[in-house]
Amino acid sequence: MTYSDDVLGRARVSDTADLKAYYERLAGHEAGALWTVANEIEPWYPQPKSVPVLWSYEKLRPLVLESLALVKGDEAGRRVVMLVNPGRKDVSAAVGMLYTGLQVMGPGESMTAHRHQASALRFVVEGQGAWTVVDGQKLRVGPRDFAITPNWTWHEHGNESPEDTGGPVIWQDGLDIPLVNAHDAGFYEVHPELYQQPRPIPDSSLLTYGSGVLRPFGFEDGWHKPYSPLFAYPWERAYPALLDAAKASEGSPYDGIILEYSNPLTGGPVMPTMGAHLQLLRPGQATRAHRHTGSVVYNVAKGSGSSVIAGQRFDWREGDIFAVPSWAWHEHANADASEDAVLFSFDDFPVMRSLGFWREEAYPDNGGHQPLG
Amino acid sequence: MTYSDDVLGRARVSDTADLKAYYERLAGHEAGALWTVANEIEPWYPQPKSVPVLWSYEKLRPLVLESLALVKGDEAGRRVVMLVNPGRKDVSAAVGMLYTGLQVMGPGESMTAHRHQASALRFVVEGQGAWTVVDGQKLRVGPRDFAITPNWTWHEHGNESPEDTGGPVIWQDGLDIPLVNAHDAGFYEVHPELYQQPRPIPDSSLLTYGSGVLRPFGFEDGWHKPYSPLFAYPWERAYPALLDAAKASEGSPYDGIILEYSNPLTGGPVMPTMGAHLQLLRPGQATRAHRHTGSVVYNVAKGSGSSVIAGQRFDWREGDIFAVPSWAWHEHANADASEDAVLFSFDDFPVMRSLGFWREEAYPDNGGHQPLG
Amino acid sequence: MTYSDDVLGRARVSDTADLKAYYERLAGHEAGALWTVANEIEPWYPQPKSVPVLWSYEKLRPLVLESLALVKGDEAGRRVVMLVNPGRKDVSAAVGMLYTGLQVMGPGESMTAHRHQASALRFVVEGQGAWTVVDGQKLRVGPRDFAITPNWTWHEHGNESPEDTGGPVIWQDGLDIPLVNAHDAGFYEVHPELYQQPRPIPDSSLLTYGSGVLRPFGFEDGWHKPYSPLFAYPWERAYPALLDAAKASEGSPYDGIILEYSNPLTGGPVMPTMGAHLQLLRPGQATRAHRHTGSVVYNVAKGSGSSVIAGQRFDWREGDIFAVPSWAWHEHANADASEDAVLFSFDDFPVMRSLGFWREEAYPDNGGHQPLG
Amino acid sequence: MTYSDDVLGRARVSDTADLKAYYERLAGHEAGALWTVANEIEPWYPQPKSVPVLWSYEKLRPLVLESLALVKGDEAGRRVVMLVNPGRKDVSAAVGMLYTGLQVMGPGESMTAHRHQASALRFVVEGQGAWTVVDGQKLRVGPRDFAITPNWTWHEHGNESPEDTGGPVIWQDGLDIPLVNAHDAGFYEVHPELYQQPRPIPDSSLLTYGSGVLRPFGFEDGWHKPYSPLFAYPWERAYPALLDAAKASEGSPYDGIILEYSNPLTGGPVMPTMGAHLQLLRPGQATRAHRHTGSVVYNVAKGSGSSVIAGQRFDWREGDIFAVPSWAWHEHANADASEDAVLFSFDDFPVMRSLGFWREEAYPDNGGHQPLG
Repeated sequence: MTYSDDVLGRARVSDTADLKAYYERLAGHEAGALWTVANEIEPWYPQPKSVPVLWSYEKLRPLVLESLALVKGDEAGRRVVMLVNPGRKDVSAAVGMLYTGLQVMGPGESMTAHRHQASALRFVVEGQGAWTVVDGQKLRVGPRDFAITPNWTWHEHGNESPEDTGGPVIWQDGLDIPLVNAHDAGFYEVHPELYQQPRPIPDSSLLTYGSGVLRPFGFEDGWHKPYSPLFAYPWERAYPALLDAAKASEGSPYDGIILEYSNPLTGGPVMPTMGAHLQLLRPGQATRAHRHTGSVVYNVAKGSGSSVIAGQRFDWREGDIFAVPSWAWHEHANADASEDAVLFSFDDFPVMRSLGFWREEAYPDNGGHQPLG
Repeated sequence: MTYSDDVLGRARVSDTADLKAYYERLAGHEAGALWTVANEIEPWYPQPKSVPVLWSYEKLRPLVLESLALVKGDEAGRRVVMLVNPGRKDVSAAVGMLYTGLQVMGPGESMTAHRHQASALRFVVEGQGAWTVVDGQKLRVGPRDFAITPNWTWHEHGNESPEDTGGPVIWQDGLDIPLVNAHDAGFYEVHPELYQQPRPIPDSSLLTYGSGVLRPFGFEDGWHKPYSPLFAYPWERAYPALLDAAKASEGSPYDGIILEYSNPLTGGPVMPTMGAHLQLLRPGQATRAHRHTGSVVYNVAKGSGSSVIAGQRFDWREGDIFAVPSWAWHEHANADASEDAVLFSFDDFPVMRSLGFWREEAYPDNGGHQPLG
Repeated sequence: MTYSDDVLGRARVSDTADLKAYYERLAGHEAGALWTVANEIEPWYPQPKSVPVLWSYEKLRPLVLESLALVKGDEAGRRVVMLVNPGRKDVSAAVGMLYTGLQVMGPGESMTAHRHQASALRFVVEGQGAWTVVDGQKLRVGPRDFAITPNWTWHEHGNESPEDTGGPVIWQDGLDIPLVNAHDAGFYEVHPELYQQPRPIPDSSLLTYGSGVLRPFGFEDGWHKPYSPLFAYPWERAYPALLDAAKASEGSPYDGIILEYSNPLTGGPVMPTMGAHLQLLRPGQATRAHRHTGSVVYNVAKGSGSSVIAGQRFDWREGDIFAVPSWAWHEHANADASEDAVLFSFDDFPVMRSLGFWREEAYPDNGGHQPLG
Repeated sequence: MTYSDDVLGRARVSDTADLKAYYERLAGHEAGALWTVANEIEPWYPQPKSVPVLWSYEKLRPLVLESLALVKGDEAGRRVVMLVNPGRKDVSAAVGMLYTGLQVMGPGESMTAHRHQASALRFVVEGQGAWTVVDGQKLRVGPRDFAITPNWTWHEHGNESPEDTGGPVIWQDGLDIPLVNAHDAGFYEVHPELYQQPRPIPDSSLLTYGSGVLRPFGFEDGWHKPYSPLFAYPWERAYPALLDAAKASEGSPYDGIILEYSNPLTGGPVMPTMGAHLQLLRPGQATRAHRHTGSVVYNVAKGSGSSVIAGQRFDWREGDIFAVPSWAWHEHANADASEDAVLFSFDDFPVMRSLGFWREEAYPDNGGHQPLG
């Protein structure tokens, strides 16, 4: 298929002196001629400003740790090195309308509580002792655990490892800040008492909803919020779920064994604006390429391999973060012949679905593999 | 509140000769006068024909085992001792419109495949080696495991313990047969090949959906059936879920810690016509009485205790089955001071909910405890 | 397809002396052998006790009017001649679990207010001046208007035509009383003040929701009840909707142009337990036969014709009421070559749908027409 | 409430030489320090770039008509004067992520067919003879009629008034083009045959779904698309709906009598990305101010009056278009003492709702009226 704008059905008006004068008069009334921009604002297919990027954890880690000494948590609000797409510096996005960053907390450190319209999620990269309190519920999280902080929930975090013997915690934050701002819908509040009073039982949502298949009974006292009542998804439950699924299914030709962290009360995404997935690539597996609307940020949870994104190859290993823009072809390969590789990712798929924007297609040629650009 | 029918707002027409003649003429036209039956068909509150009953497993077990020699599985269709409420013999119901029975399968035995409009569920009481194939998926079930056979799914079962060294399996069947028949909606089909060809991976729904909180991802290939994609709920997952919930919550004043076996894709009941619950009574716990619309059949999964139902006390221990009719006051007590007790139950609550019939109220007097009748 | 019970897959156990003794011992424990009743309670296809019936309005009308003098409204509760299926006298059902009757109110008469678990609907047959107050909303209804009284809404009615010059009103009541009772869920309450205090604006739900395609706006103050916020559906809107639909579609081969009275907020049925339809048969149209689960009560709103139900022909004209049992073949014909015929009907289809019981099939032979039995 | 960033809980890190050097090193890795932008990207409340604007129809109309001679429809694609917010010229938005424009078609003119990811709606301002074909369904629209062209539906339009005696048609287009582009989800296709073959019955969705309260019956053949099956909402039905609602309700203190054009199968908005409303201000009525997330474009359908938006007064009369940005206080007044005024509007409220971004608050002071800025 060719995409020429010089066809009937596209705007093809040439400038003339009369038209230029007309355009100027329109401009004087806060107006313009649609046909001067129509082809640009109604493109044949998505034209993201985001580009594929990989952030090497090996390179970023020292910089992240360096910030511990450079700024105090209370002055920074949060001590985070954010990862910014070269094409999206104006909105501090990693890709599309998703923000991500690496947050570091020293042993014994804690941050004040706030809430905001933006939804947040965490994927722990390294370190012991991390906790977060979300709407009064204390969650303890360790490496590769996934947790959510839905929109407008109070939250604060810290690292309760001992100041003398403990080490720092680094986790990846994912937020929909650029999405919220694009929709002119941002709100922010500092907790009136700076810190929440957590309820006595930690990890209560995990105790209550963690089985996923037996839920608290009651006709009246249900959960009516638009996000998951389960706030933490430990790796020790997520990884076995991948292994189980791998026994029962071939999985997806594009993604290997891929599961979505889900709201056990709806089967839907954990939050209305961001979804999260965990996928396993079998030893040596190389998936076929596909593309879809929606942007994705990956974190390499386990193993090593490579992805080809829009014809460009990115090699990755544990801790690396990479981004796939909307409608970019992408495929993944596990480089190891004996160990599986696991990718965590978060995305804006719930938005694509709610707004009716989801589209997907398989790479048709070459056995499903892109030529390297 | 008093419930006299001799008030304005109730039918209070006395018979006269004229009226009797009139009624006869109406009868000749397949008609009648509403006021002659109005108070009866529109009662102040539910008037179930079902009564509370307890079936002692100790007494039934020998009778159930005796059937092994008395009838062949293939001749009986299924070899089941059904439990019949004294008030519902006309429809073979245990309570309300729920059927239940104890099915026994000898070692090495198997039954042919069929399907029916009625939905079925199983709760294994004793024995090793039981299996069921539901729509081509083989499930292995052991003591206290719960499994479903939703409406119109092909199913067959057996006991694969060795004929020489194995023992019988006894499980409890729960079906909505009386409900289906009351709605003039019963269908039945014998499998054209008498046996299904099971798919190669047993317990595939457990491998795929068992985590409950990570579900297979895919925009297209979803599960659109009105029942749970998860067909088996092992005790080894259900009991820990109860223990977890008990750490996080006081539970219900009427039921202790109570969880519903749920469809992980909706958070709703496992099937549209029958729900199932598992509840834990802490050592020594005595709950308060309540009543609600909807009928319940209980199986004592663990421990011993007693329930007061409509003012009548029933002592129970492991394996016993008892029934609570709609709108009957009921409360439960764990007799043991150090061990928890666990009740499995199934019910028609999903129907109450769909049809808008659910109502519930707490027993208001005497600290929530009924006087014994 | 043949339906023999003498096949593998059905119960085929012959009585023996041993078995008879065994059955007696089971009976002593409120138990029985499933195989003695299995074939009966799990039939090959539905076995309704209801039979097809037609009630002639010409014959019933004088009897209905006669009741005006025979009983006072306040003594009868409601002055209704109920129509009872010969096979369902035990539960006062017209067909399946649906109740129907003809209610008459003399000029100037009114009835006290009550509410019950059963849902009710009205279809006005003749007379001017009828009104009903449903949860404080006064509705005025005339011939062929349809109105609902959802479960547990307070309601009372009357005929406000002048006592001297006015005439009686006759409307058809439809209720799910047998359904409610079968589910042990009946409740009833007389209004504490005997009469409601209606709100000042009559027909407010029609004014507010009647357009169907523009609804009151508000994020907060929504309608969360499980039934339609619109309580009255006037003929003057319903009949033109049929005529419009007839311009755009051929309609159903089994039902002609058929529309469902719907909840404008969901597109679903007006109430969770009963649906209502209006269908137009073009001049001379004879539909093809089909059958489905679910029971239907028809009222001939306009015109004349005939229906063949389970091989039996019933001729009908305006005001006649007839019933089609579950799974009975049925087809309709408009006898008039120049006028359309319109059938109003109500049914339990919402229940069939909620419980997963719906099934439908076309009559396969003879061009879709049943032989007359 | 004061909104100072110099408080604990906000980022308050001052630049130092060390930090500047650190920031530069981060930038070399496509990274940055969150605290340098945190306060800006997580504002206390929404900071839209859009400003309130009013476009005078009197002033724009001659310019719109002038375009008839300046460009041919086929060359322009569509002949539209778009209305551009001074703060959103970069994305051609009228306000927020909503696009709007005035499209003109001369008598006898027609445009080729295309489809796009963006959803469109029309509100006819003046002229007779307009039509649009949406996915094969021809719709005829006149002044003040509202019609939709949901995402990815084929559409083309024209003006079938006679070339010699007819006049031009001007309608307002509303699209979510900026929204689609912000989500990197734009697709566009020219119809392979340039024109659709419309089905024989015009306005079929109006004939089929227009009653809103009686819908086509059928268990199988339902409408499963995420937008309304009704494509046209004539003024002759919408205005009486307003008048009816005005009889039954006081309406909203902020909006007068306000109704939402709704999907009759869901009660929800007409499309997943844009909603539309019609509101009536009684003679002399002045509403109270409120603000909410979500952007709105108004068209004055009838009458005259004024709105105060963010403290600025805008006088309007028929045909004028004005925009209210997210979170701007706004209130409306009907200037006429005897005639009602009617405002049509479209908005992104469905997006606010799906993404969980909706918020609303009343203006608390001065009797609900803003001081003029």
